[in-house]
Amino acid sequence: MTNRQVVLNERPTGLVNAGTTSVVEGGIPVCGDGQALIRVGLLSIDPTIRTWMNDAPGYLPPIEIGAVIRGGGGGVVVESCNPAYQVGDIVIGMTGWQQWAIADDNNKFSVVPKGTGLSLPVVMNVLGVTGITAYYGLTDVGAFKEGDVVVVSGAAGATGSVAGQIAKAKGAKKVVGIAGGPEKCAEVVELYGFDECLDYREPNLARRLREACPKGVDVYFDNVGGEVLDAVLMNIAMHGRVVLCGAISQYNDMSGFGGLKNHTMLIMRRGRMEGFIVLDYMSRSAEAQLELATMILTGQLRHQEHLVHGLENAPEALNLLFSGGNHGKTLVVVDDSVQLS
Amino acid sequence: MTNRQVVLNERPTGLVNAGTTSVVEGGIPVCGDGQALIRVGLLSIDPTIRTWMNDAPGYLPPIEIGAVIRGGGGGVVVESCNPAYQVGDIVIGMTGWQQWAIADDNNKFSVVPKGTGLSLPVVMNVLGVTGITAYYGLTDVGAFKEGDVVVVSGAAGATGSVAGQIAKAKGAKKVVGIAGGPEKCAEVVELYGFDECLDYREPNLARRLREACPKGVDVYFDNVGGEVLDAVLMNIAMHGRVVLCGAISQYNDMSGFGGLKNHTMLIMRRGRMEGFIVLDYMSRSAEAQLELATMILTGQLRHQEHLVHGLENAPEALNLLFSGGNHGKTLVVVDDSVQLS
Repeated sequence: MTNRQVVLNERPTGLVNAGTTSVVEGGIPVCGDGQALIRVGLLSIDPTIRTWMNDAPGYLPPIEIGAVIRGGGGGVVVESCNPAYQVGDIVIGMTGWQQWAIADDNNKFSVVPKGTGLSLPVVMNVLGVTGITAYYGLTDVGAFKEGDVVVVSGAAGATGSVAGQIAKAKGAKKVVGIAGGPEKCAEVVELYGFDECLDYREPNLARRLREACPKGVDVYFDNVGGEVLDAVLMNIAMHGRVVLCGAISQYNDMSGFGGLKNHTMLIMRRGRMEGFIVLDYMSRSAEAQLELATMILTGQLRHQEHLVHGLENAPEALNLLFSGGNHGKTLVVVDDSVQLS
Repeated sequence: MTNRQVVLNERPTGLVNAGTTSVVEGGIPVCGDGQALIRVGLLSIDPTIRTWMNDAPGYLPPIEIGAVIRGGGGGVVVESCNPAYQVGDIVIGMTGWQQWAIADDNNKFSVVPKGTGLSLPVVMNVLGVTGITAYYGLTDVGAFKEGDVVVVSGAAGATGSVAGQIAKAKGAKKVVGIAGGPEKCAEVVELYGFDECLDYREPNLARRLREACPKGVDVYFDNVGGEVLDAVLMNIAMHGRVVLCGAISQYNDMSGFGGLKNHTMLIMRRGRMEGFIVLDYMSRSAEAQLELATMILTGQLRHQEHLVHGLENAPEALNLLFSGGNHGKTLVVVDDSVQLS
């Protein structure tokens, strides 16, 4: 038995390609004192992984050449020398792109409670980093309040779709999504229940936003950055808040985006633009998870998981986030035999 | 006797030029019930006036073609039909670029207290909009706290020089200015007492900032926008705050600035960028004025007033702010005979 791993070969420019990563076979790690050995079942595929491949300042160091790709995942404890983990526990944490991972005090995993009735893919979507990001981005960074007009980009994506639904459930005056193409826009309105969705691929986004939000945008939950962010800034309301959650349009350096021009609207409208990283909110995750689980169980929160099979397909799964080829949260199934619910 | 006025002829592109404004002669306004007639002595020349000449969304409507240029000023009450104003009072408010102005409930002026020992130019600089902007921009929007590393652009300018000195007086760990040219940089250090000043006209500002602030910038008080803002964003500290006070490098549309590229650093560093307008703080002006007056009287606050004589030279005085030809707060002396202290 070996530990198949996806490692970084070279730093990509643009999308990840055949030369970016390799699949290698390592030994299965030995479970030492204070550790637990995890058989990885699922990988969480998130846009931020692409930023870690660059040699650029970030909130975590770049992935080193030759190292296993950093990333979140879920699996089952098969051996434990740490009382925090029991054999058979379903756990979530930073597994990396590999078949076997080690949990210890430097790399803690959270144990998924039994008996929730929610499968691991759902837990890793709405109750995981994705849902917690949406929740605290909107409520804390965005200081959302009832009656706000909310705009969410990447609205068909895993985080955006949840952020918009939380805003709707908490009494937003209007929730407008921004997504790419008519199919995604239809999904945002029909499946996720946004009031409206604008296609950023069509011209004059700033003007269409003004029509959709004539009194301005109180909270903008930004997953994409670039020209879409510029268009929303032109429409920011007095004391509006821009939540910088991600900038997926800028991660691949391919968009030809010259730079943000409308940030001076933050002066005119006394607006605020603030970035955050969900890691800073993990100590408060229980509050978000409880509310999100309740929303799922009462039918207020729609979600989709997009499963890609095979560890070796993780790089392609990452590219899906940039091409828009995914529907909902993208997860890679590393091992079908792992009990996922 | 007439009322000489500077009116807007056409919207400028770039700097104000001979065709932008005209001097016209109107009648002296009649002091109606509830009004006071003011003989204007000084005009406050502020970068924001240039933004009002554009037909663009702003925090106030654009100045209409043919209208008197909007702007602050100070003068003396010569006739009053409003108990709030006594003949002989020195007052500050929105005079516009003209010799005579009317105060009333729609255009209130503040009466300068007698016996402070401070001349009107000083009052219109440090105790006026300039000082109040610096004070609340740093303390409220920037959430400055003792031990912060502070960077101020436009550091030789009226607002920037005060902002840096307040930070220094309140216990900043380090205050670094950014200004244009060696003469201005020397002034920032030697006259205003900043710890260091970087010349933005020299190359590699981002790298020099990293050397000056190796642990990052906690508060950036931005008066200039553009590439300087981008260089500071690259060096923002964890939970750093960018105070968007002005963007003078962008007001004339001549800099060839492509757009802001480093705003994604706000995500990496959980930073905040927030705009404000001093008008929102005028109800709290007394607190700032008391502290600033104390700083002047105890020698903790250095200031300069740059006087330009003649109403007709107000457009040229405005251009000085963009060429850097001024030293300290730029004021136009409209009428030498008005008692200014």
